[in-house]
Amino acid sequence: MPILITDADDPRIEAYRAVRERDLVGRQNRFVAEGEVVLRVLVRQPRFEIESLLLAEGRAEGLADLLALLSPEVPVYSANRTVMDTIVGFPIHRGILAVAKRPPMPSAEALLDSLPARALVVGLIGLTNHDNVGGIFRNAAAFGADAVLLDRETCDPLYRKAIRVSVGGALVVPFARAASGIALMTALKAASFEVIALSPSGREVLSQVRPSRRTALLLGAEGPGLPEDVLAETRTVSIPMSGGFDSLNVATTSGIALHHLTRAEHDPAL
Amino acid sequence: MPILITDADDPRIEAYRAVRERDLVGRQNRFVAEGEVVLRVLVRQPRFEIESLLLAEGRAEGLADLLALLSPEVPVYSANRTVMDTIVGFPIHRGILAVAKRPPMPSAEALLDSLPARALVVGLIGLTNHDNVGGIFRNAAAFGADAVLLDRETCDPLYRKAIRVSVGGALVVPFARAASGIALMTALKAASFEVIALSPSGREVLSQVRPSRRTALLLGAEGPGLPEDVLAETRTVSIPMSGGFDSLNVATTSGIALHHLTRAEHDPAL
Repeated sequence: MPILITDADDPRIEAYRAVRERDLVGRQNRFVAEGEVVLRVLVRQPRFEIESLLLAEGRAEGLADLLALLSPEVPVYSANRTVMDTIVGFPIHRGILAVAKRPPMPSAEALLDSLPARALVVGLIGLTNHDNVGGIFRNAAAFGADAVLLDRETCDPLYRKAIRVSVGGALVVPFARAASGIALMTALKAASFEVIALSPSGREVLSQVRPSRRTALLLGAEGPGLPEDVLAETRTVSIPMSGGFDSLNVATTSGIALHHLTRAEHDPAL
Repeated sequence: MPILITDADDPRIEAYRAVRERDLVGRQNRFVAEGEVVLRVLVRQPRFEIESLLLAEGRAEGLADLLALLSPEVPVYSANRTVMDTIVGFPIHRGILAVAKRPPMPSAEALLDSLPARALVVGLIGLTNHDNVGGIFRNAAAFGADAVLLDRETCDPLYRKAIRVSVGGALVVPFARAASGIALMTALKAASFEVIALSPSGREVLSQVRPSRRTALLLGAEGPGLPEDVLAETRTVSIPMSGGFDSLNVATTSGIALHHLTRAEHDPAL
């Protein structure tokens, strides 16, 4: 049975107050997940400890199967729409929020060491758009990438909107940060990854690339692209486009490349 | 030289008033394009007649090469940020708006008849999300699709946000509407298109599909997917995904499929 919250100032729902403002400053050791689809992914990931749930009144009934998976000591709060919107600071259309602990992030080296001998990793350098990072995690999960590495500039995959856009993929694919694009590439090479850098000026064409046992795919921001020092030391690959309109969204690019690199698993002719 | 507008009520900039509200009700014979990238695509498309431009003060200088391409009778208005935001009804960060005439839309049959013997067409059924429709037009332009067909439910590619997300692709790839999904499919078959329907339950795998001389790719909304009556009469194709996470964004799906179907053009081994 959910615990009914009738006062927006109730200290028990402190973690849900002013969600957007806290999104901006960042939460130290927690993150917020929203919506049923994301919550269904979250409850199945043992590396995340859920601290509590806040549901709009009437939502608990439809989530009974999911709530049954929570450990009994996780409090499930419920509030009517007006109280919930006051707590959160804006209308939560989905009416479902969860706060979970952010697990300690492994080093890039430790994460790569933990992967199987045959592995596919995505490396993101300078990606500061949450929609794009979320979209890339969605594709990484869909095509079974084993991990994502981020440089220091790339935004947080556990930002609420990035999780939502990833449809929970940001909770599925493990990630780690490297200090820079060069450090990220160096860690991949040290772990015997063949490093492929997607770039409009790439020397090879994606459709001709065959994956190695350990393949890493580097993506940079639309516009600036990957840094020159990274391109200089990697196998650069382009996606040929139609004359005069060579513009792909970076999340779409990740989907195209991941599909290509994993297709052999589904294609007996290859 | 831009014509300076100092009064937000000036009748000459009537077409720019309350942009969002008019987006919602729809414009009869016009559309609004925003931002430099989109404007650069627009001025190069002879099928669109630009009626006027409204620029934030100081933007005209950086656009001199582009403004030189406009016919001299097209008025270029300029206003300071405060006046411009008052006219438009919200802050226009990009500071660049254009109003253009919507050309008459051909019938689906007429558009298909106008295409070359070797052609690639995208068909959209029930796509009501402007981001997705914009993203699909961006990919259609990037991979040189010859046309897009829309059913009646699919939203307007010339909606301001769809054009922006398409990075101008909605102005590049011609489109037409059919009365329904079945009518759309029937028109394609009558024009000798091999019709491929993307569906998670597809009987074939995308990576094994080879394009025909005339190939059409049908996409439905995430969630409901394509209607059963359409799937029953087409070649259904799936994109295999990793176990337990079979979720791709529909615009990403279009990018993966268009890349696959056009790769032979760039791959001498095929």
